Amino acid sequence: MIRELAIVGVGLLGGSVAKAARAGRLARRLVGIGRDAGRLRPALEDGTLDAITTDLAEGVRAADFVLLAAPVLAIEGLLEPVFGAAPAGTVVTDVGSTKRNIVRAAERLGAGRPLAFVGSHPLAGSEQSGYRVARVDLFRGATVVVTPTEATELAALKRTTEFWEALGARVTSLDPETHDRTVAAISHLPHLVACALVDGACRVEPAALELAARGFRDTTRIAAGDPDMWTEIFLANRDALSASVEAFREALADLQRVIVAGAPDEVRAALARIKATREGLR
Amino acid sequence: MIRELAIVGVGLLGGSVAKAARAGRLARRLVGIGRDAGRLRPALEDGTLDAITTDLAEGVRAADFVLLAAPVLAIEGLLEPVFGAAPAGTVVTDVGSTKRNIVRAAERLGAGRPLAFVGSHPLAGSEQSGYRVARVDLFRGATVVVTPTEATELAALKRTTEFWEALGARVTSLDPETHDRTVAAISHLPHLVACALVDGACRVEPAALELAARGFRDTTRIAAGDPDMWTEIFLANRDALSASVEAFREALADLQRVIVAGAPDEVRAALARIKATREGLR
Repeated sequence: MIRELAIVGVGLLGGSVAKAARAGRLARRLVGIGRDAGRLRPALEDGTLDAITTDLAEGVRAADFVLLAAPVLAIEGLLEPVFGAAPAGTVVTDVGSTKRNIVRAAERLGAGRPLAFVGSHPLAGSEQSGYRVARVDLFRGATVVVTPTEATELAALKRTTEFWEALGARVTSLDPETHDRTVAAISHLPHLVACALVDGACRVEPAALELAARGFRDTTRIAAGDPDMWTEIFLANRDALSASVEAFREALADLQRVIVAGAPDEVRAALARIKATREGLR
Repeated sequence: MIRELAIVGVGLLGGSVAKAARAGRLARRLVGIGRDAGRLRPALEDGTLDAITTDLAEGVRAADFVLLAAPVLAIEGLLEPVFGAAPAGTVVTDVGSTKRNIVRAAERLGAGRPLAFVGSHPLAGSEQSGYRVARVDLFRGATVVVTPTEATELAALKRTTEFWEALGARVTSLDPETHDRTVAAISHLPHLVACALVDGACRVEPAALELAARGFRDTTRIAAGDPDMWTEIFLANRDALSASVEAFREALADLQRVIVAGAPDEVRAALARIKATREGLR
């Protein structure tokens, strides 16, 4: 299906794509690109990649499919050199967890021409990072959101969708704005809130964390995520995140109000409604 | 160790105590007490209990150890009839997840006399409830907080501590006020916040929940808890909970401020500090 797949950034996501692509024989040749040859070498040595390079232009020169698996702010900066060096007709996609900034940058660069770039966001990951935690089955059963716009070439959208499906993912399509608003609510906000929970508990009762039971550990697991990565995500999506924080603060204030008022029927009704919503999650 | 153990309320917690006490031969005789004989029968039929009754006074009349495993508001109401019917010297403890109200009520009832009541709070549980989810190993490795005061008989504290330890738990002692402040921060607040996250996500983007990835599901798992039980807990501990909500709102506002300001170094420093705290949890 793919002749040469170039993966820029061979960490958890890029490495897992490489492993799954190798196992599923999705590409005849797999090239890994990164800034640090030492970090790329394990994926070459274990047979996952056919070649590695720290030279971006060289790495994408023969590729017919390019995956940008760098941190979210770095992806924007990769678009221009990749578009410049890759052959005409090469499909480019990414794994960035915010999409407006990346898709907008791609459209600016491709202005006027039909664009072989398709934004992707695999809803898979971990609080850990790096190639050593990459897994051949990371995308199996995961959801990948693709974010085409009117400028997107239909053929590129089709190839990108088939690419993720071949890795075992379910593919959903959203426009970049709806995507960013949605992930702010279901991913960035929960992360921010988990951080505030850990911090707030320390402020109330510094010894409290020693007693933390399973509920607290589950709720705050994501607060152990990589600070560099989450700083980029929070800043890249800060307006949508702020809107989510606002909705969350209102929801919290509504619950707090009926609790402080000592109104059992209203508290119970709110909790029952929310429980029903939560149980609707697959 | 115990001649006759009476358990008032044979649900998840009371049922798990009964199963573990039976398996560990902690008590020669096990009596289950509840309002609904139909709900008690499964634990009699499977051999966990030796007797069941819906008559509280009759159930505790021959007990030398009584466990009150009812919902938190009901426990307060059980103290007087249990103290009235149980033999002198019987040790009474409970599983309520707030402690000031219960311990204060017990001290009022015992005014002047040394008290054979010891507040307990096992930090174990589940979003599910009822005897059918009770487990023989629920307390193995769990933390149980006991909340003695100056009025507590030392012998009763010792027996209660040994009781929980015999079920496999680690026992920690806190005064009732510190306990309530602590559980507000590490248990009640996370629950409230998980509810507000589900509710807030719906307000921002009603379709968002369909895309919820693992992070969101983990963070909000506890929002599927029993509305009746959580209504009682929130109301019983509402002042300590309000203080925790306040600390949390400040922690969230601090994070939100540096994100909105677009200050990457400050965001990263805050996230790194919180990650270190979170990773300190066992």
